[in-house]
Parts: sequence; structure tokens; C-alpha cells
Amino acid sequence: MTTQMIILNGGSSSGKSGIVRCLQAVLPDPWLAFGCDSFVDAMPTKMQASDEGIVFAADGGVSVGAGFRALEAAWMAGVVEMARAGARVIIDDVFLGGAASQQRWQKALGRLTVLWVGVRCESAVAAGREVARGDRIQGMAAAQADVVHEGVLYDLEVDTTHTESLPCARTIAAHVS
Amino acid sequence: MTTQMIILNGGSSSGKSGIVRCLQAVLPDPWLAFGCDSFVDAMPTKMQASDEGIVFAADGGVSVGAGFRALEAAWMAGVVEMARAGARVIIDDVFLGGAASQQRWQKALGRLTVLWVGVRCESAVAAGREVARGDRIQGMAAAQADVVHEGVLYDLEVDTTHTESLPCARTIAAHVS
Amino acid sequence: MTTQMIILNGGSSSGKSGIVRCLQAVLPDPWLAFGCDSFVDAMPTKMQASDEGIVFAADGGVSVGAGFRALEAAWMAGVVEMARAGARVIIDDVFLGGAASQQRWQKALGRLTVLWVGVRCESAVAAGREVARGDRIQGMAAAQADVVHEGVLYDLEVDTTHTESLPCARTIAAHVS
Amino acid sequence: MTTQMIILNGGSSSGKSGIVRCLQAVLPDPWLAFGCDSFVDAMPTKMQASDEGIVFAADGGVSVGAGFRALEAAWMAGVVEMARAGARVIIDDVFLGGAASQQRWQKALGRLTVLWVGVRCESAVAAGREVARGDRIQGMAAAQADVVHEGVLYDLEVDTTHTESLPCARTIAAHVS
Repeated sequence: MTTQMIILNGGSSSGKSGIVRCLQAVLPDPWLAFGCDSFVDAMPTKMQASDEGIVFAADGGVSVGAGFRALEAAWMAGVVEMARAGARVIIDDVFLGGAASQQRWQKALGRLTVLWVGVRCESAVAAGREVARGDRIQGMAAAQADVVHEGVLYDLEVDTTHTESLPCARTIAAHVS
Repeated sequence: MTTQMIILNGGSSSGKSGIVRCLQAVLPDPWLAFGCDSFVDAMPTKMQASDEGIVFAADGGVSVGAGFRALEAAWMAGVVEMARAGARVIIDDVFLGGAASQQRWQKALGRLTVLWVGVRCESAVAAGREVARGDRIQGMAAAQADVVHEGVLYDLEVDTTHTESLPCARTIAAHVS
Repeated sequence: MTTQMIILNGGSSSGKSGIVRCLQAVLPDPWLAFGCDSFVDAMPTKMQASDEGIVFAADGGVSVGAGFRALEAAWMAGVVEMARAGARVIIDDVFLGGAASQQRWQKALGRLTVLWVGVRCESAVAAGREVARGDRIQGMAAAQADVVHEGVLYDLEVDTTHTESLPCARTIAAHVS
Repeated sequence: MTTQMIILNGGSSSGKSGIVRCLQAVLPDPWLAFGCDSFVDAMPTKMQASDEGIVFAADGGVSVGAGFRALEAAWMAGVVEMARAGARVIIDDVFLGGAASQQRWQKALGRLTVLWVGVRCESAVAAGREVARGDRIQGMAAAQADVVHEGVLYDLEVDTTHTESLPCARTIAAHVS
């Protein structure tokens, strides 16, 4: 079965974006990349600080409302359709709800062939990278490091704590059929 | 009929992005915004300077290859699916092929209710804004100002030459049902 | 007397950055451009939401503390030194304190030959452009449109309400000796 | 002697920017950060692809002309003046000329108290990070990894190959007096 979609899940500052760019570089076919960041960018600015939309609290907590969930469901249906239509698609997401988030994707995916990848990073290391990035609210990395993986089932996991993005991407690419 | 998608077409530096953000601000529902820029960002970096992908020439010319077209068709199918699934979607695009580009969209849209909007800007003014932006290859604005509208049919047109983004957006919003 | 520095003052979203890039394009010599945005970027992230540093309130208000003022004085001395050392320098700033802000610059400038430029934009138009940018707190443009010019003396003023960045830049360039 | 300036030198993608942001976070005083990237951003766009200015070749090579050197000398004089005026300043630079680049700084520094820091990263690892960033010309990291350190004298060196930005920053901070 040809892998139609790769879904990476990991906490903030765990290194997902770097792995995605390396995957796009090492995989021979051209894969499209989307994720929670590009989805939030597509939303109206006014949703980005609204109870209906998404709220980033000063302590690193993130909460989303019913309006966000409705748009997200349609967005998921759309990126799945891109894969059905023949584009190969990489998604990087943050499963704030753990297993419940994975189930939302599974509901959208239908019979699509997906490679599920967990992107781990020790909480303290991710928190340090959050400082080094300088563009994220301090506390998100630590708050999300473990909770996003709770109850989630993967085909493989990579750990960026001691491994660079490129070798992680090569490991994942070896599982793409 | 409820408008499910708004498609704006105009040359580089004609002011599409500003109008899109104003539309997202003034329309009461939350609309998702995608476009040729976010599509190119989703492609592998290696496609961004490849004959198969998209090539930005030093004189402002832009050409795309078969690989680009294949991904674009899948991307179009996906954003249309988002609208079918209930999200309201704004697209900003540059119809490098004029009427042929519109036909590609029409093929993807099926029975979706779409508001077609032409975004005009006098070539010399767009070229000046290109200088003011500083992040675009000089010459794109002038090269695209007229050609992208050739043979394209619109529900309404706005002209940013003497009108700000916000009033243009209000004019468009008045046509959304 | 050769113009060694151009200082543009105007409220948020009045169009300063676009004029600066056009000035750099039309002036025959290579001019370096700095401003309040690049200064804030140079500060530690932790200063960007601190009473000692700079605070952007939800209503568009901006207040700065003693730590900010101390760094700013040193930064001003430095950019003035660049001009003394032979680089031609364009500054874009927001004189939150009106005449008092201009006096801070004058104290730093010594005998440097400076062209003072006021960048005006009608409050409502600047507020609309703030919406179109999407990356600024709503309310800054309106709050700053007039107050930044109070008591400030200029060599010339441009108004972006009905004039594009490039012709504004050409007008300014004609005053550079 | 109080450290007035920290100068970090390392090749592209060696991790300088992350270390700078961590230094700004862990050092108790507010330090201003400037570097070759912010300097290039301050130059006219037209200098960024000109023999007089700076040219980024497709193979990762970087060459600069006489116009660049003249502006750079004035810029160095200015950032040194900021430190003399009481701001504490962190510089991150790429010494394309090795020891000759350090001498240009030393000429500008006069009697300023400087902490010289070499930022090392194994060439292959830096090249991998260049892929993960996706916004740099492939080849710069490998081309610069060693050559920028030739003949340069440091107060201390850090190596990001196996050490994160934050602990590197803590090591440097321990040398700041």
C-alpha cells in the first residue's frame, strides 16, 4: 500500500517543523506539508484570541473553542481530499487531546493509508529550544511534551532529544512505502 | 444561495492579501484563507526553483511545470472539499494563464457557490508597491497586472489603485450571501 | 551640507516602512535603514512585555519604561555614530512623546546634518491599513496618528492618505543633498 | 572589567541565533543583539544581489564588495558606540575572512572589553540543520563550518554538535563579568 499521508504528532518545540522540511527534502516525490500552524494562519486574526477560536494563555496553556473545532473538521476533510486526489501530504499537529485528537483524524481519514509518527522530545530540552526560538510563549513546550502522546498509537516514534532532524526524517522515510 | 467560496484574482502586489485580511475581519462568520502563496509554502523547497515546480525569473516572469500542476489540482480539490464540508473559504490567486486558470478552478469547484472577484491595480502603481514591499522580484507586478485578467469572468471587480483594502473588502462583503 | 541622516516620524501603519524601502531604492547611494521595530527586535524578548521595557496594551496603547529609555539612548548614540563614520542612515520612528521624543534625538545628533520628515496619514485610513496588515494590535494606528506629531518640527511632511510610498519617497529624495 | 560586548563567530547554521536568544534570556541585564543578518537587512535590497554589496552564490558561496565593506565599517563603529554608551551588546557574525575579519572588529573596538566566543558545529550536522531550516541556500553551512575559525582567537568556544543552545549560553554567561 502506498503511503498517502504522514501525520506527525508532538508537543511545541519538539522539532516537528524541521523534520517536515527534511522529509520534503529526502523523499523522492514532492510532498505537500500542512499543519496546525498553517491552519491557525488561515483563520481570521480575530479567532486567534477568542474563546470561540484559540487562546494562548500566558502560562503556555492552549485552549480551543467550538468555532475552532468546526473549522478544523472541515480543514481535515480538505487535506484528506488532497491526498485522495493524488498529492502526498505531510501533516504536523499537536494532539492537545491525545487519543481524542487522533480519533478526530481517523474519522476524517477513512481508508487513506497513513503513517503515524510520534515526535518525542524530553520536556526540559524542548523547553530550552523554546527559549532559543524566542517566538513562543514560555511554558508551551513543557505543558505539551507528554500529554499530547497520551493514548496515541504510532507506526513509529522518533526522539529529537539526542537525534537531529535529518536522521529522524531518514528513519521516517524508510517506513514510507 | 449561500456563498461558499470567494476567489480573488489579481497580479502580484495588486493588494489581494490586504483585502483578504480585511474580508476576514469584516465578514461576520469565520472564513479560512488560502492562496497561491500558502500553496507554494506547502511545497518542498526543492520545487521552488525547479522546472518541474515553479521558477521565478530575474525579470519577474513566473513559470510552472507539470509537477506543480499535478500538486495544484490536488490542492484545489482539497480546498473545495473544505468548503463542501462547511468551512467558508477565501482564495487569493494569480491566474497566470488567465481564462485557462479560471477553468482549472471551475473544474474543481463543481456545484459550489462561488463569488468571483477581480482585483485590479494600475500597472505602475502595483510596480511602486512592489518596490515598497521589498520582498518581491522587481517586474512581477508589471508583468502580471493585465495578463491575469484576460478572458476571466467576474461577479465583481475592485480596483486598489485609488481605493484602500478595507473599502474594497466592504464592497466584496456586500456581495456575499 | 550633505544629508547624513533622514529621520521619518509617523504613527503605526502610516506607511513609514514602505517609504523607507522606496528611499533605499531611489537614492543613488546605499543608505542603511534602522528604526523602532529593529530596535525592539534587538532587545531581549523578556523586555517586550515588561514594565521596564515596552508594553503593548490590548487597546493599542504603548508604554515604555526606564530600562527601555536607557537602551534607546545608547542605540541612538550608536546609529548617530554610524552616520558620523560615513554611512548614510534612514531612521523610522514613532515619537510617542511628540516634541520630547524629537529632543531625545536632537541631543544624540550633535552637529549631524539631518532631514526631518513627518509621515502623516489620516487616522481612519491608517486604522484600515492596520486591519489589512493583520499583524498589529487594533487601535495603535488611531491612537498614534496625531499625537506623534505634536510639537515636532519637520523639514518636510508627506501624507500617505492619498499618495503612494514611491512618490512620497521621491519627494523626500528631492530634499536630500 | 565589566564585559561590554560578546562577539560570537560561527558558520551558517552553527546555532548562533539560538544561543543569542538564550543569552538574552539568561543574562540578568538586558543585552541588545545585532549581527550580520540584521546588518544585511538594514542594507538596500539592491545591495543584496550586487557585486558592490553581497552575493549569495547558488553553491553556498558568499562574496562581498567594497560598498559592503564601507557600510560594514560604519556599522561596526556604531554598535561599538552603543556599548561605549552603556548598552551591553551581543554580536553574532560569520568571519568569512577568518583572522582578517576579527582584525576588522578589533580595529573598531578600541579599548572595549569583549568576550570572544567561537561557535563550532561539525560540518555534516550544520548541513543537516540547513536542510531543516529550509530558508538558506544549501551548501553555506558546509562551506563556512571551518574556514570562519581559521586564525581566530577566542576566550572560549562552544560546540553545538551535541550541546543545546541553552547550555551553551549558560557556559558563555559564566564567562561574562
